[in-house]
Amino acid sequence: MKLRFLFASTILSIGILSAQQTNLKVDQDRLEQRIFDLAQFGLQENGETERVAFSDADVEARNWVVQTLKGFGMEVTVDPAGNIIGKRAGADSTKKPISFGSHIDRVPNGGNYDGCVGSMAALEVIATLNDNHITTEHPLEVIIFPNEEGGVMGSRAMAGNLGKSALSVVNSTGYSMGEGIMRIGGDTTKLNEAARKKGSLAAFLELHIEQGGKLEKSNADIGVVEGIVGLKWWDVVFTGFANHAGTTPMNARQDALLAAAKFIVAVNEITTGFEGAQVGTVGRIKAEPGAPNVIPGKVVASLEIRDLSSEVIKKVYQAIKEKTLEIAEVSGVSVEFLPLDTTSEPALTDSAIQKEIESAAKTLGFTYQYMPSGAGHDSQDISRFAPVGMIFVPSKGGISHSPKEFTSAKDMANGAKVLLQTILALDKKLD
Amino acid sequence: MKLRFLFASTILSIGILSAQQTNLKVDQDRLEQRIFDLAQFGLQENGETERVAFSDADVEARNWVVQTLKGFGMEVTVDPAGNIIGKRAGADSTKKPISFGSHIDRVPNGGNYDGCVGSMAALEVIATLNDNHITTEHPLEVIIFPNEEGGVMGSRAMAGNLGKSALSVVNSTGYSMGEGIMRIGGDTTKLNEAARKKGSLAAFLELHIEQGGKLEKSNADIGVVEGIVGLKWWDVVFTGFANHAGTTPMNARQDALLAAAKFIVAVNEITTGFEGAQVGTVGRIKAEPGAPNVIPGKVVASLEIRDLSSEVIKKVYQAIKEKTLEIAEVSGVSVEFLPLDTTSEPALTDSAIQKEIESAAKTLGFTYQYMPSGAGHDSQDISRFAPVGMIFVPSKGGISHSPKEFTSAKDMANGAKVLLQTILALDKKLD
Repeated sequence: MKLRFLFASTILSIGILSAQQTNLKVDQDRLEQRIFDLAQFGLQENGETERVAFSDADVEARNWVVQTLKGFGMEVTVDPAGNIIGKRAGADSTKKPISFGSHIDRVPNGGNYDGCVGSMAALEVIATLNDNHITTEHPLEVIIFPNEEGGVMGSRAMAGNLGKSALSVVNSTGYSMGEGIMRIGGDTTKLNEAARKKGSLAAFLELHIEQGGKLEKSNADIGVVEGIVGLKWWDVVFTGFANHAGTTPMNARQDALLAAAKFIVAVNEITTGFEGAQVGTVGRIKAEPGAPNVIPGKVVASLEIRDLSSEVIKKVYQAIKEKTLEIAEVSGVSVEFLPLDTTSEPALTDSAIQKEIESAAKTLGFTYQYMPSGAGHDSQDISRFAPVGMIFVPSKGGISHSPKEFTSAKDMANGAKVLLQTILALDKKLD
Repeated sequence: MKLRFLFASTILSIGILSAQQTNLKVDQDRLEQRIFDLAQFGLQENGETERVAFSDADVEARNWVVQTLKGFGMEVTVDPAGNIIGKRAGADSTKKPISFGSHIDRVPNGGNYDGCVGSMAALEVIATLNDNHITTEHPLEVIIFPNEEGGVMGSRAMAGNLGKSALSVVNSTGYSMGEGIMRIGGDTTKLNEAARKKGSLAAFLELHIEQGGKLEKSNADIGVVEGIVGLKWWDVVFTGFANHAGTTPMNARQDALLAAAKFIVAVNEITTGFEGAQVGTVGRIKAEPGAPNVIPGKVVASLEIRDLSSEVIKKVYQAIKEKTLEIAEVSGVSVEFLPLDTTSEPALTDSAIQKEIESAAKTLGFTYQYMPSGAGHDSQDISRFAPVGMIFVPSKGGISHSPKEFTSAKDMANGAKVLLQTILALDKKLD
């Protein structure tokens, strides 16, 4: 990771944007208000919001976004995968669109900023252009992707990678992905029509909260994302033999949970044992039958490995698997690694767009930092068919996927300004 | 544990029973048929039976038992805790009753023999006495205890140990213990009336399947139970910090599941590290929020320790707790051990009754073995106010709390014969 800091006082404006454009006022209060408005959809009695994809709250929030985009004078459609697409005509209708957006669905027990900041900033960019009566050369496209948290569903469909097998995955609402797509106005029989051709977008930009603590730690306003780590998921299934905990001596047990516990310890030791920034996580575990007085006969534990390099993911996985087979052998249980369909390959962002984001941050007087994204994002799949850029803004305390998630209004506005200026710069530079 | 084998061919009848009594025919087929009849209550489409306490199946099976006891000419009552009590008058009404029985409720996904063998054998004893027109000196009492599997509820109430706090525990039917007691004809406002005075029974006997593999391994027909191990339960709560698995570096995690995994490994190492037959088990685990891409912020795991000695349980617990506090410290998480109300103290059976069981087994030509019970039983609480004896019969493969649980008709009949002869011997010997 490169670290480059530049302070406003040391910068000479690079001068690729007109005076009118660099003076464009993103409305910080309006942006923050939309974050609050969005958080009303799914607001619970405890003051926290729940809005898992396909829930009633998700459907209502999506309708509100559609109405807002229409209110901006945009032409709004929902594609067969449920992507909300708002179009704003450019001066030159033969040009490919510059697209930008994020998602508004949330993890269970999540926060108000993940996805929402990028989505509401996309709306703020359109509002600001409208306020200033600016028409870009390229058509603009706001895309709000559905069910990002449950497997980047909308962007995967756009990349032509949403297979039938993924549609049977059920989320916490009780709906399968297929049923959910029907619920939000998509059409599972026409998913291929949601796929975009390679080269069909001039560029795609996504603003997102960092969801880590690096920007806050180094006191930087903006992260220029170099790439998004790939991830692989497995269900690791340990099969022993359930038996009475009182009558089965310690040496006659085939305890699936004991084997799983040794596996969890091994995942940590092996992941941290290699040089590098790879991460390995066991986040979900289920022991059956699950009573204090019964030796668990079956345990299913998740395994997730992430890194910017597919080779590293493979290497860490192989080491974990080898060790786990040894653990199973001595524990008298069997083990299987079942790959899950949520795998995503590492994705690098477009280096020319990285430069434009850097340039916009400089011009606006923000400190910034190049960094990888440890989290997956819709941009990852969009990068399969379009040049992509990602802008990060700080997350307080590095906390994310939690009601404690927080990004200040100022940081959100900083990000929206960089997003707007990058769009305008690309509009001038791209064919 | 003492091992004593005696074979029929080497035994001279001890001659404390009359010829008529030792020739009494327990009806093996009738006993087995009642096991099958009982398994009809709660029979599922997959051929397995579910009959958790307070379920419709439990209520129906209890009614069937009541009707059967009445059919034997017994006076049947249900006490305020839901204990079914069938009384058969003795020749001397001033004598205290000799009581015997077991339970007919089952664990979820359990088998047809645990509790049921002892209950149906109790019925078979009465039927055999009726067939042979035998009146004992002591009154006899068949007791079918409710909700043994959910905390030896009925026997605890008889021992005066069923506190108000236990009544709020909800089982898999959705009923709390208090609601369940009302459902099966008890009365939670009169639980103290279910309590029996110390010395109010001449003796209590329970026949049960072993639920372990010792009798099968040593090819013994009958287990003479020396005592029932005590057990303690805790919920062990690990509190770390839930965070994004992609953006939180390995060295910045407070992973509650990693700490819990090290605890599970420690429970096994420490329990097996001491000399003795103590067992330590983690059977239940819940990680929150429980998604593959979120570092668990909270884990609740059960801990159960059993032994015939309270001192040993204390010693093992202290060692586990000490080690777990160390684990938590280095993992950056906090840990709490919350004692659960399912604790039971070790209970020894009455040595005079042990001798009578041994003598009955010898007279009948069965091989036998003295052994502790690793499982808890209603007899444990009854031993607080009465001299208790327990008779074990083999469990195939040592399997229990499973649909694969099995005890042959011959083994069940052997147990019923020993139960009957022990009752008759005690009837002669006891005041």
